[in-house]
Amino acid sequence: MTERDAARTLAHPDPAEIRLEGVLHALGDPLRLSIVRDLAASGPELGCSAFDLPVTKSTTTHHFRVLRESGVVRQTYRGTTKFNALRRADLESLFPGLLDAVLRADRAESARLAAQV
Amino acid sequence: MTERDAARTLAHPDPAEIRLEGVLHALGDPLRLSIVRDLAASGPELGCSAFDLPVTKSTTTHHFRVLRESGVVRQTYRGTTKFNALRRADLESLFPGLLDAVLRADRAESARLAAQV
Repeated sequence: MTERDAARTLAHPDPAEIRLEGVLHALGDPLRLSIVRDLAASGPELGCSAFDLPVTKSTTTHHFRVLRESGVVRQTYRGTTKFNALRRADLESLFPGLLDAVLRADRAESARLAAQV
Repeated sequence: MTERDAARTLAHPDPAEIRLEGVLHALGDPLRLSIVRDLAASGPELGCSAFDLPVTKSTTTHHFRVLRESGVVRQTYRGTTKFNALRRADLESLFPGLLDAVLRADRAESARLAAQV
């Protein structure tokens, strides 16, 4: 690994370091929840440019960092592009059914709010 | 209702005003998660004095307010004591299975951390 590669390797918690309150805090923000929704609906991973978020680049970076540091997403550099993937297997192993319950609740809320319009 | 009673009636969101990200944010804190755990394990409601939290009274009040304003708990004055109850039925109706998934995840984490000691 070159020095440049090392600098581009992002820190992720091991599964044993992931905490429920950190995961819930990461999910407890509309923008971060929308990122998780998009990742869940997509293939295994998405480049950062796939997200069309109504905030600045530095705010986007902040939200991805919260998701990464809490153990919700894995971010990997490939060339100059950062790719993002949900850590489904790790989360499912630690907290069976939790991510699916959150995604179901998110769909229920979207349907409910759409029906109110 | 006397003026004093009105001042002592606390604001709660209607079910239609409860938002998933607010609920997840409220649960995404170790102290608030412990309050929810205790309420889930207890009878229908608990007085504030039933919680032995390692923080000041004003911090406790803040955390209960976050739980109340997000729609997770209902707080009711009876005489001079504030009673707290989980809004299980409202949450279950809006987000079926979510609260149970969080409580299961919390038990799984407690068991996992206890096994590491």
